[in-house]
Amino acid sequence: MDIRKIADVAAKLGIAFPTAEVYGGYAGFYDWGPVGTELKNNVKRSWWKEFVHASHEVVGLDGAIITNPEVWKASGHVDHFHDPITVCKKCGKRYRADHLIEEATGKSAEGKPPEEMSEAIRKLGVKCPECGGELGDVVLFNLMFSTQVGPYEGSLSYLRPETAQLIFVNFPRLYQIARKRMPLGIAQVGKAFRNEISPRNFLFRLREFEQMEIEFFFDPEDDKCPYYEKVKDYEALVLTAEMQERGEREKAMKVSEAVPDIPGREWVVYWIVRSLEWFEKIGVRKDLLRVREQLPEERAHYSEGTWDVEFYFGSMGWKEIEGIAHRGTYDLRRHSEHAGKPFEAVRSDGTKFTPMVVEPSWGVDRVVLALLFSAYDEDGKRKLFRFRPAVAPYTVAVFPLVSKDGLPEKAWELYMSLLDSGINAVYDEKGSIGRRYRRQDEVGTPWCITVDHQSLEDNTVTIRDRDSMEQVRVPVTGVVEWIRKRMKG
Amino acid sequence: MDIRKIADVAAKLGIAFPTAEVYGGYAGFYDWGPVGTELKNNVKRSWWKEFVHASHEVVGLDGAIITNPEVWKASGHVDHFHDPITVCKKCGKRYRADHLIEEATGKSAEGKPPEEMSEAIRKLGVKCPECGGELGDVVLFNLMFSTQVGPYEGSLSYLRPETAQLIFVNFPRLYQIARKRMPLGIAQVGKAFRNEISPRNFLFRLREFEQMEIEFFFDPEDDKCPYYEKVKDYEALVLTAEMQERGEREKAMKVSEAVPDIPGREWVVYWIVRSLEWFEKIGVRKDLLRVREQLPEERAHYSEGTWDVEFYFGSMGWKEIEGIAHRGTYDLRRHSEHAGKPFEAVRSDGTKFTPMVVEPSWGVDRVVLALLFSAYDEDGKRKLFRFRPAVAPYTVAVFPLVSKDGLPEKAWELYMSLLDSGINAVYDEKGSIGRRYRRQDEVGTPWCITVDHQSLEDNTVTIRDRDSMEQVRVPVTGVVEWIRKRMKG
Repeated sequence: MDIRKIADVAAKLGIAFPTAEVYGGYAGFYDWGPVGTELKNNVKRSWWKEFVHASHEVVGLDGAIITNPEVWKASGHVDHFHDPITVCKKCGKRYRADHLIEEATGKSAEGKPPEEMSEAIRKLGVKCPECGGELGDVVLFNLMFSTQVGPYEGSLSYLRPETAQLIFVNFPRLYQIARKRMPLGIAQVGKAFRNEISPRNFLFRLREFEQMEIEFFFDPEDDKCPYYEKVKDYEALVLTAEMQERGEREKAMKVSEAVPDIPGREWVVYWIVRSLEWFEKIGVRKDLLRVREQLPEERAHYSEGTWDVEFYFGSMGWKEIEGIAHRGTYDLRRHSEHAGKPFEAVRSDGTKFTPMVVEPSWGVDRVVLALLFSAYDEDGKRKLFRFRPAVAPYTVAVFPLVSKDGLPEKAWELYMSLLDSGINAVYDEKGSIGRRYRRQDEVGTPWCITVDHQSLEDNTVTIRDRDSMEQVRVPVTGVVEWIRKRMKG
Repeated sequence: MDIRKIADVAAKLGIAFPTAEVYGGYAGFYDWGPVGTELKNNVKRSWWKEFVHASHEVVGLDGAIITNPEVWKASGHVDHFHDPITVCKKCGKRYRADHLIEEATGKSAEGKPPEEMSEAIRKLGVKCPECGGELGDVVLFNLMFSTQVGPYEGSLSYLRPETAQLIFVNFPRLYQIARKRMPLGIAQVGKAFRNEISPRNFLFRLREFEQMEIEFFFDPEDDKCPYYEKVKDYEALVLTAEMQERGEREKAMKVSEAVPDIPGREWVVYWIVRSLEWFEKIGVRKDLLRVREQLPEERAHYSEGTWDVEFYFGSMGWKEIEGIAHRGTYDLRRHSEHAGKPFEAVRSDGTKFTPMVVEPSWGVDRVVLALLFSAYDEDGKRKLFRFRPAVAPYTVAVFPLVSKDGLPEKAWELYMSLLDSGINAVYDEKGSIGRRYRRQDEVGTPWCITVDHQSLEDNTVTIRDRDSMEQVRVPVTGVVEWIRKRMKG
């Protein structure tokens, strides 16, 4: 499966398409159409239910996209959140300098100072890949979007490049509000912005994207997970740092065996497993998911370990859709130092400590993209998305077999009663019944209900299953129950 | 009720508080805490269910916050979306020049050219209200936040100052995707940003805020609303433009009698009434709501009429929480001209036309604020929010009467089964039972379930109602059903 094909299908069906197409779009920004908006909302809602409502330790937060710029000074983003770029002196194209050097040498150049990279480009004779022109000196480009807040000499602030800092900076108040519970998870869903040099691959690398994440704070001296028994035997495709160093491929193993003995180890395992279980639940194909431990040189210096959940995106290969990072006490300490205030928790014996944190962080757009890859299918003449009912944009479609004989009225009545029951239904009476089935298959509607002449006689309807294409007759009075039962499964 | 009091209560309970408080906050930006996030999510979810899922004509959209800047040129925001400001030469404070002139003269100065306002300030002898200093020349300040997109000579773009334009600019594609349905409503929920000169009044005037809106497109030659019979007799407090000119106050009347004979009149009535019905449903007090028609000089030149739904915010007085604007064909024509492409619909006879649009647009933050005002109550020693179950941050709390004798285990089991059933429950075993009741009252949880010693014997629990404070005994096996029944009511 190719990303361009998915992008084409998505645009055609109204899942997502370049923003403001009539003006030529805008690189790195997408608008979500009717089908995509429902799908994305369902993913976010499922996530919130699973990880906030159904997780005793976790509460929600919804922080501002623009906040006090001190947050980004404290977090290090103002000073360090940049990419090294070089501009072709001939054609003006811009490149990530480290990527060009990596391509030339096969070795990572990440984090090297710009002077060293400029030097390397000269020595290696790297030229512009587009036109062969000479490349300019490497400079650092901060990836935060900045904006002036307030009239005139107002302060310069930033669009948040990640949602996480809004959680860290609010820790003192939230810890109070949560009545000093520990462990304490704080969850957030929301937009973040990065001024990427080359946004690409449809929904994969965007300048405006959405995150779902949890900062899970715990006491390093009391780091047992009470649910550990339930997760310790869970198996998945895993690729540890060691295996990568030995040149091995991912293999099925217990997640718990892949996480070394670090503080909060059981919670790390817990969050990886719960993530994988949730992916399965919403229909991300498990055979296309692997857990890859980041290599020591990939992860932040303060991290005790980071695991990426990667999805196999066909021609794009394995790509991260979620990261589970152990961030230690780094962020809370940074804010504590910068603000000159304590960012601490207190034990029952009165001793104070800085909590450690494990951060599972999902890219919403990437999860949706993985769902599109997982669910898309071509089955003879049919092109369809086999979405699970829990995330399908529409749960059910209602059709009158023909547009006469009182069938539309009866179908409309059923449609209205489904809406009243909170079931997301659509009504369609245009075109042949086969065509209407195809339209629903295309957008992944699990069930189609047809009201026919028999319905007028015995008050039953047919329900057609998207995947098996089989039909069953169900009394109108039992339709809501029939659907509800299958939504749960 | 005073807005500052609500703001204090909201901060204390974790509803909403200034962003990044440890760095002194940031004017016009708020973070939403655990309770507020649930409340706001419930409001948005209820709105989406009501106006997208349960509205046959309406589909959803989720547009980008940053889009191609041509959108804002076409819409007129680049040229005209500004406020006139004047700066005190002595203390440096900034003011809306038109507001100062209005205060001095009692007459509206909105829309006057800056030179005229500078002149008026001099002639009237208006001084800085803070320090009495001389005021500088009036200049126009664009309220859009701008930001540089892409490295180096990337283009300048804007954070959207309203969500509406994302709908207009996507009309051609969405009309196709909706298979040329007309009327067609396109709904969107999302953040918008305005660089307000003086953000104030807690959640009322923010620089970062959230909108829920529908652009409802219709054919001016076929503008009957099939649901009109259901809405035409709905009564509410209404204040027409005429009544305002006669100096009258709002009075109870049929909404349908207040809307003059303009194209799409029935749809205007329909959207006003549906809005009011929804406000009632979620618990915004109807006696504190009125529909005020904007005066001709208040509304945009292209508007056939605009109605504000206003809420009585105690000391702040009547303030808009929703606007229903008739925007004619203005926006589609602007984009059509700017893009050089047709923004049209087609009738069954093949004739083409530019649809007209009615736009109901809600401020999410303001609706939540109206809910806080509506639901807050002090009842003897109790301070509580009387939220409707459908929007209450938590639906139910589960307590063991005491933390021993196996009661916590049984209560926990019930708590887990509620979560499994999709009911947003909280569990609390800390403190006396009275104290735990108070805590739930404070955040507006409708019901508290207590597991006591009798529960161990006969498998029943008590359910205590927040408002009546009465308790009933219910079998554990019937709790989910008991709650579900009351959630609907």
